[in-house]
Amino acid sequence: MRALEVTAPWGGDQIKVVEKPDPTPGHGQVLVRMKAVSLNYRDMLMINGMYGRGSGQAATITPFSDGCGVVEAIGPGVTRVAVGDRIATLFFQNWQSGRPIVEKLSSSLGFPIPGAGSELQLFSQEGVSKVPAYLTDQQVATLPCAALTAWRGLFEDARLEPGDTVVLQGTGGVSIFGLQFARAAGYRTFITSSSDEKLARAKDLGADHLHNYKTDPEWGKAVRAATGGVGADFIMEVGGGGTIQQSLRAIRINGHIAVIGVVAGAGEGLNPGALIGNSARLQGVSVGSREMFEAMCRALELHRIQPVVDKVFPFTQVGAAFAAMAAGEHFGKIVLQF
Amino acid sequence: MRALEVTAPWGGDQIKVVEKPDPTPGHGQVLVRMKAVSLNYRDMLMINGMYGRGSGQAATITPFSDGCGVVEAIGPGVTRVAVGDRIATLFFQNWQSGRPIVEKLSSSLGFPIPGAGSELQLFSQEGVSKVPAYLTDQQVATLPCAALTAWRGLFEDARLEPGDTVVLQGTGGVSIFGLQFARAAGYRTFITSSSDEKLARAKDLGADHLHNYKTDPEWGKAVRAATGGVGADFIMEVGGGGTIQQSLRAIRINGHIAVIGVVAGAGEGLNPGALIGNSARLQGVSVGSREMFEAMCRALELHRIQPVVDKVFPFTQVGAAFAAMAAGEHFGKIVLQF
Amino acid sequence: MRALEVTAPWGGDQIKVVEKPDPTPGHGQVLVRMKAVSLNYRDMLMINGMYGRGSGQAATITPFSDGCGVVEAIGPGVTRVAVGDRIATLFFQNWQSGRPIVEKLSSSLGFPIPGAGSELQLFSQEGVSKVPAYLTDQQVATLPCAALTAWRGLFEDARLEPGDTVVLQGTGGVSIFGLQFARAAGYRTFITSSSDEKLARAKDLGADHLHNYKTDPEWGKAVRAATGGVGADFIMEVGGGGTIQQSLRAIRINGHIAVIGVVAGAGEGLNPGALIGNSARLQGVSVGSREMFEAMCRALELHRIQPVVDKVFPFTQVGAAFAAMAAGEHFGKIVLQF
Amino acid sequence: MRALEVTAPWGGDQIKVVEKPDPTPGHGQVLVRMKAVSLNYRDMLMINGMYGRGSGQAATITPFSDGCGVVEAIGPGVTRVAVGDRIATLFFQNWQSGRPIVEKLSSSLGFPIPGAGSELQLFSQEGVSKVPAYLTDQQVATLPCAALTAWRGLFEDARLEPGDTVVLQGTGGVSIFGLQFARAAGYRTFITSSSDEKLARAKDLGADHLHNYKTDPEWGKAVRAATGGVGADFIMEVGGGGTIQQSLRAIRINGHIAVIGVVAGAGEGLNPGALIGNSARLQGVSVGSREMFEAMCRALELHRIQPVVDKVFPFTQVGAAFAAMAAGEHFGKIVLQF
Repeated sequence: MRALEVTAPWGGDQIKVVEKPDPTPGHGQVLVRMKAVSLNYRDMLMINGMYGRGSGQAATITPFSDGCGVVEAIGPGVTRVAVGDRIATLFFQNWQSGRPIVEKLSSSLGFPIPGAGSELQLFSQEGVSKVPAYLTDQQVATLPCAALTAWRGLFEDARLEPGDTVVLQGTGGVSIFGLQFARAAGYRTFITSSSDEKLARAKDLGADHLHNYKTDPEWGKAVRAATGGVGADFIMEVGGGGTIQQSLRAIRINGHIAVIGVVAGAGEGLNPGALIGNSARLQGVSVGSREMFEAMCRALELHRIQPVVDKVFPFTQVGAAFAAMAAGEHFGKIVLQF
Repeated sequence: MRALEVTAPWGGDQIKVVEKPDPTPGHGQVLVRMKAVSLNYRDMLMINGMYGRGSGQAATITPFSDGCGVVEAIGPGVTRVAVGDRIATLFFQNWQSGRPIVEKLSSSLGFPIPGAGSELQLFSQEGVSKVPAYLTDQQVATLPCAALTAWRGLFEDARLEPGDTVVLQGTGGVSIFGLQFARAAGYRTFITSSSDEKLARAKDLGADHLHNYKTDPEWGKAVRAATGGVGADFIMEVGGGGTIQQSLRAIRINGHIAVIGVVAGAGEGLNPGALIGNSARLQGVSVGSREMFEAMCRALELHRIQPVVDKVFPFTQVGAAFAAMAAGEHFGKIVLQF
Repeated sequence: MRALEVTAPWGGDQIKVVEKPDPTPGHGQVLVRMKAVSLNYRDMLMINGMYGRGSGQAATITPFSDGCGVVEAIGPGVTRVAVGDRIATLFFQNWQSGRPIVEKLSSSLGFPIPGAGSELQLFSQEGVSKVPAYLTDQQVATLPCAALTAWRGLFEDARLEPGDTVVLQGTGGVSIFGLQFARAAGYRTFITSSSDEKLARAKDLGADHLHNYKTDPEWGKAVRAATGGVGADFIMEVGGGGTIQQSLRAIRINGHIAVIGVVAGAGEGLNPGALIGNSARLQGVSVGSREMFEAMCRALELHRIQPVVDKVFPFTQVGAAFAAMAAGEHFGKIVLQF
Repeated sequence: MRALEVTAPWGGDQIKVVEKPDPTPGHGQVLVRMKAVSLNYRDMLMINGMYGRGSGQAATITPFSDGCGVVEAIGPGVTRVAVGDRIATLFFQNWQSGRPIVEKLSSSLGFPIPGAGSELQLFSQEGVSKVPAYLTDQQVATLPCAALTAWRGLFEDARLEPGDTVVLQGTGGVSIFGLQFARAAGYRTFITSSSDEKLARAKDLGADHLHNYKTDPEWGKAVRAATGGVGADFIMEVGGGGTIQQSLRAIRINGHIAVIGVVAGAGEGLNPGALIGNSARLQGVSVGSREMFEAMCRALELHRIQPVVDKVFPFTQVGAAFAAMAAGEHFGKIVLQF
């Protein structure tokens, strides 16, 4: 079988398709024939050698935490899935439920555990989950990281009510899932983008308020105006240091800011004292557990939510896929097809 | 009656004792003979002309949000208190209960509403609260801001269990109340100070772990060591930008940092992305409501907690009191006696 | 002006239209010209002399907690509303926000405070709330009790996620609001009725699962079947002792049952031990606070929810209106028009 | 090795000590040499053939969910514990963390999974947990069911603050743990008993209010008097239908009643409508998860809480131990020593 691998010198154009022997599942393991994987910002850091937090990245990386496949074989002791089941990979292979503790979180796919970028891949039976039938393989591949991050940010950590206002920054994977989930939950939605065309697409997905931050960088003021001066109840912060100042202008007293990304760079930084006056909350979010994933799938199915797959590449053109992500032109998710 | 007043040029030594006519309570108002007030960091900003958030500080300030007094007269429609009742002033005169919204929070004592630094002062009946009999007047005067901030930070916003570890930074008013409340609630406590003598006093109050950050600035590591590598469940962040880096080293995955002060300055600032990896939460805290105050008083009384009054000055020596605060030598609270 | 009044001997046909002098608003009061009121089960108990919990019902009752009107005059000190504002009455005149305590809850309209069944009625300014413009007067009159009870039961006490399953019992006022709110919040809905025609109307409102309990009394089993054996996440219990056994069959492990009514009688009663095996929760609900009402109005407006007014009577035909309620034929709410 | 077994005809005096071959641990299993087990009310139902909820109890029962032992051998794949570790058994062998779902809860020890009443017993490595060193073996044996039930009832389902009032019914295992935990968490405690002598022992453990319900059955009134008319914030309901009426008199508006037992019989039953007026909550509690157990052990250790072992019997005198439980004379827990 063929697998994707990359090592120093790093880079999207350095990823190789290598031939490897077919693996055999051990106790509690399943062998999965991958159908599709989706790209995350984290994968881009990884293939560029920028991941692993100082402790040193693995010598060789098989990227991708997010995949869809079909169970081809199972090892002894496997009860959760059967041969033929279609599954999604789970981002944290060991976080089944309950509190996030270091033992559970040190099991993320791609690094340190080899990722889903192989025609055949072994997983613990605890590391995969069955998925709704109405979704395409490509759509399933978008769920493990981006969708679950948006889900946890909105429904596990925060506590909102219908009629509350939610701000989505940009039109990347997490933000578009955030828009779709917020709509399903009856929240008012405010979305920003640098492109009127993308805003028009967001409107088609049901966004209530559209804001082009290129035309008007002061989106914090615009949120406040759209909420009668009160501010947003919830903001999905994907920009990090580069956007947090606007978020603090946009958030209501005692509002909730889910911090899920830093795509806008470190920016000028935040003085924590800025949170005191309005009792705001910054809540870091890092994907979620299997139980959260299952709850999310239940909601996806009820609402027949259609994950937005923007571009699809054959898995052998992985370099082109990462180039498309780096260009930042996408709306929703970029997928590789096996 | 005499009142304290200050105006530009600002400064602790510019506060005047002025003679004014005795006020008369209107509809729903109470006239209170003040017994004691306590100093907060916010008062120091105020008398130095550094308060008011850009909207311009009042031309003349009567400082102090935190006082103890006795009801001398009541206006028509007053039902909450009677003549002779001993009361504490409430920091937010209009925040009785429920959500903090701008209408409730724009009623803080000292600014924009004239403060408690008068021999006789008028308050709305909603702006005062009866207090436990076991406390001295001076102790009551320490409760409205410092104690309630610690209370809300620990019990309203966070959700802890006995056995959880709580970090207190330094030995100022909020931190010492935080220590006393955390002890009463069965949490493990870790406290920092630049002074071994103050740490010894903290130990007498029941602190489990003592850390001199002058000797060893890496208290984040020490917290981690004291918790078997897991990290603290809760940190009362009083330092702001200057200490948040250590707090992020000290906090456990998904832990809670209550941001209540910025006494250590802006520091290098925080990249919100730093919260993602460990799913930490920063929660701004700004005092609390009447209902929280009443719940706190109930707990104070059950545990016969003794608020720590460090230094007492006659109210005419208000300048000396602020000088003592600026010197930063106190352990607990500084009080003015009428 | 004319007002409705009833006294012993009690009964819907004993309610008199009496002429009274026009009232004048005192300090903090507003005078409201009523446009419409809606009937609740509680009003029916009241006019039949069955209310007041043993402490003795008032000698003369002006019924109705739920009304819509326009402010005609205001007394001194009124800042919340202005002449000409359209308002809804609040069920608990003194429960503005925060914890439900006896001081707040002993202010319910109709009893002990005279109700909204008058052409002109005085209220505290705290006892009325402005309402969304898109609603008719009759629709506004349905909100204070039935809608707010459903809102609090679903969103304040419970904690649900999109995709969760909610059971509504019957098609009375609270249940129909429950259906509309649950839909807006993205929950799966299961509704019961004794009438296929009413079920068809519920389907038009978006109900996912319909169950005729006359044809098949074992709706607990049907809920379990509809949820893959798991059970419902939430049940709005309006039947009381007469339906709780089915609810316990229908609820999932650790599920939430909001107890809001007893229209099916006391039944055989409940052994609390029945809750242990499945860790279920019974949560009594009794209307809500002003802040909850305002949050509800925000959601109503975003979703343009149309409260269902089933029948309208002139207020002079109040007896016929109560007869219609007693017949139990309604779907949604019965309203009196002034 | 020897094991306890019972089958029809059921009864404490029918339990046999049988000789069986020593078991060998399979994949993921541990072999434990038991040191002590404790008796629960559930065990008494079980050995009397009254357990298993209609689906038919197992033909032969080895009772006891609660034990302390030392790991004697481990099977392949075991990483959680090592040979020589002292462990407690977990009540639900498969409920590690997160939501209680049927897959996790159908793994309770004693039934359907053979219990801890053997000199040597096999467990999944997920079904045991290491325990604090300061506890005796007998004390450890009291934790899995009684202590964890009290812990979950107080800290997982409810949300209390220091100063809140907690009611404990009687002096059985759960209630005495409830008293100790409530004290550690800074709650005010009110305990009932039929015996002044037991109340005196409860006072030694720190109970704030003592009430002999034999002398005065109206303890609901007494709770209300002790709380200034407000009522208790939390009640640990162990009596069930026989005591719930008093609990409803004792609970404050919106208070929390944790339903954990039915030792006082079914009583007259409860009309759910009784919960509406005061918005009370009944929350069924059935032990807890491994993560809750670990959190509890952390608190036990910090506070050096001493579980109360009332009587100890050699395991061969199991019949006498059950007779002592049936007599209801105990204060705290009854233990068998291996």
